[in-house]
Amino acid sequence: MREQFPFFAAHPELTYLDSAATSQKPQAVLDALRDYYVADNANVHRGLYQLAYATTEKYEAVRQQIATHIHAARPEEIVYTRSTTDGLNLVAASFGPLVVQPGDEILVSGAEHHSNFIPWQQLAKRTGAKFVIAPVQEDGNTDAAQVAHLITPRTKLLALASVTNVAGGAVAIRPLADRVHANGGFMVVDGAQQIAHLPVDVQAMGADFFAFSGHKMYGPTGIGALYGRYDLLAKMPPVQFGGEMIDTVMDQDTTWAEVPLKFEAGTPNIAGVIGLGAAFDFMATLDLAAVRAHEQALVARLRTGLAAIDGIQLYGDEASIGIVSFNLTGVHPHDVATILDEAQVAVRAGHHCAQPLMARLGVPATVRASVGVYNNEADIDRLIAAVQSARRVFDAVI
Amino acid sequence: MREQFPFFAAHPELTYLDSAATSQKPQAVLDALRDYYVADNANVHRGLYQLAYATTEKYEAVRQQIATHIHAARPEEIVYTRSTTDGLNLVAASFGPLVVQPGDEILVSGAEHHSNFIPWQQLAKRTGAKFVIAPVQEDGNTDAAQVAHLITPRTKLLALASVTNVAGGAVAIRPLADRVHANGGFMVVDGAQQIAHLPVDVQAMGADFFAFSGHKMYGPTGIGALYGRYDLLAKMPPVQFGGEMIDTVMDQDTTWAEVPLKFEAGTPNIAGVIGLGAAFDFMATLDLAAVRAHEQALVARLRTGLAAIDGIQLYGDEASIGIVSFNLTGVHPHDVATILDEAQVAVRAGHHCAQPLMARLGVPATVRASVGVYNNEADIDRLIAAVQSARRVFDAVI
Repeated sequence: MREQFPFFAAHPELTYLDSAATSQKPQAVLDALRDYYVADNANVHRGLYQLAYATTEKYEAVRQQIATHIHAARPEEIVYTRSTTDGLNLVAASFGPLVVQPGDEILVSGAEHHSNFIPWQQLAKRTGAKFVIAPVQEDGNTDAAQVAHLITPRTKLLALASVTNVAGGAVAIRPLADRVHANGGFMVVDGAQQIAHLPVDVQAMGADFFAFSGHKMYGPTGIGALYGRYDLLAKMPPVQFGGEMIDTVMDQDTTWAEVPLKFEAGTPNIAGVIGLGAAFDFMATLDLAAVRAHEQALVARLRTGLAAIDGIQLYGDEASIGIVSFNLTGVHPHDVATILDEAQVAVRAGHHCAQPLMARLGVPATVRASVGVYNNEADIDRLIAAVQSARRVFDAVI
Repeated sequence: MREQFPFFAAHPELTYLDSAATSQKPQAVLDALRDYYVADNANVHRGLYQLAYATTEKYEAVRQQIATHIHAARPEEIVYTRSTTDGLNLVAASFGPLVVQPGDEILVSGAEHHSNFIPWQQLAKRTGAKFVIAPVQEDGNTDAAQVAHLITPRTKLLALASVTNVAGGAVAIRPLADRVHANGGFMVVDGAQQIAHLPVDVQAMGADFFAFSGHKMYGPTGIGALYGRYDLLAKMPPVQFGGEMIDTVMDQDTTWAEVPLKFEAGTPNIAGVIGLGAAFDFMATLDLAAVRAHEQALVARLRTGLAAIDGIQLYGDEASIGIVSFNLTGVHPHDVATILDEAQVAVRAGHHCAQPLMARLGVPATVRASVGVYNNEADIDRLIAAVQSARRVFDAVI
């Protein structure tokens, strides 16, 4: 597997355990990007020549490919975005004002990433709605029971990560979606940490919207997609204007193109879309159940190894989707990361764009290790050894 | 020159004259993208390890490179965007409401691209301002005298392309910027068609904002930049939320990061930024005066050749910046493009995302040929021959 990723040949000394921040890319994705620019580069939905037609066809075929992968009902339900963040902001800016009135409630968990927290907080401020934050579990994961308990007939939007980005827990979305739907509200899912690790079925999970990024699923940077239920997308106004997202531009008013083009103003990231298609092709070569078993074994090995270290604080649990966050008592997580860096182990330390969760956990930051399909037991063992070494260094200092 | 662009080796039969839609990419840009993914791929402004630091440094170095190229006062004045469209929409959504009150005026030319027209039209609708459209010249270019005439003390925003995208005329921005500034307004420049062809000095031109895309200047798709005067950017609220664009996220409110990070929510298009840097490196190898002379000679050759064809209607003039738009009397421009396509000549036919201009010219569309550094006289002659052939075909039909 690892030999498909040229990054590792270029960095034989590095233990890369930061795939929840961004994944490495298989050769097939790099080849698709190069082939696009060399063989197919032309603007889409604009040209009247063979190359432009062919490129537009390939570009639109990826929409179908995504729809199939995540079980959307039709390709028009897939909007190309810059990133998960871009997709969630599109929902907040366009759909939010259609359904949220003063006195309504917008519900999130305290474990959300900023990108699935601040857009809703600011929407609540703008609309005079109440921004409700469900308490989290002690281990840093979303507490589904607390979320369920807080859904009321005033809950117009429930926004949750299907896999949290610090503790790594999977959230059973369907029962919560059913409950919010029964109360007349809508379910928005941040799928950034799910897409590379678990199958996605947006209809089965009851998502009205589901956002993800390419760069966390072995694809290029600068591209993502937003799934939205067709009837909802059809009602939503565009939030960016220009280029081919129009039907007719009159002097004082404009009518919009159909879904999804009305949300795609300007020349899109064409190469990014083609690269994303190649990343889905790569995903299709994987046995996701085997990947899940492999990643779960790595997580278990890491948790067992870390648990034996004095003063370790582990977040999440054994079922974590490829993520292990931890702290060492008495040592700032940034200092842990620095020692790991000296040992050529790349992990992330910080608030992980989840300051509200850090406040709830009572820590400024955590160290987070996260795995992809290319990681192996040796990577895990190097991380454990490096943390043991950090423990010794700081014990000597203290 | 052409041998630096692998696209042409892959398409020896094709005459590519659609660079105003998107340019082809030199090998150096493709290499930079691949090298990024193979050698440097890590998330920026997040990781605490050497690779992440080094990548963040390269990513930020491009900001300085852009600032230097366009003569911004400081790198913080450069905001990474998805495209020109994204940049102009950012200004309209964030800066617009700060300065536009009911009864104020927003002024554009009738020659603007949708991306520099609809955002202002919709801002005017939202704010109760008047949307004023300056009449265009008969040749389809912006009429600077008409624009100047329409600037009043109520003009809060003047938005113009520095080079128009249908007729290709350069607009002398400075005198208009001075006039709008003297009236207390602000100057927004759509630089999409300037950036690959002419030097840019945002301070000398008096631009408060200047937006451009990478993909029209030999760089990747999905990346662009917005220049904004620092004092203005500092006052503007973000329009997208999430990730590292924050200072502190509290439960019910958030404070923002400094300029420009507060405008860059979510993981950015890191590879795109690196590729854009490589495109600026490529631009730096060019003698822009020589490029201008070369492209002007091609435009002159094309205009002369086309002018000899019966029933030709040429837009713009000899000074056009690499663009020649035209129509053939009695023949729909789409039919012209189809015949050119059969001759393997790739041009764009359509409204060019400039429906208001088409209405003013009284045509549904035009055919547009546009050149880049890789085009030569043979390309021009093939286009002329193909248009002559189209003339003959339709004369026979009529």
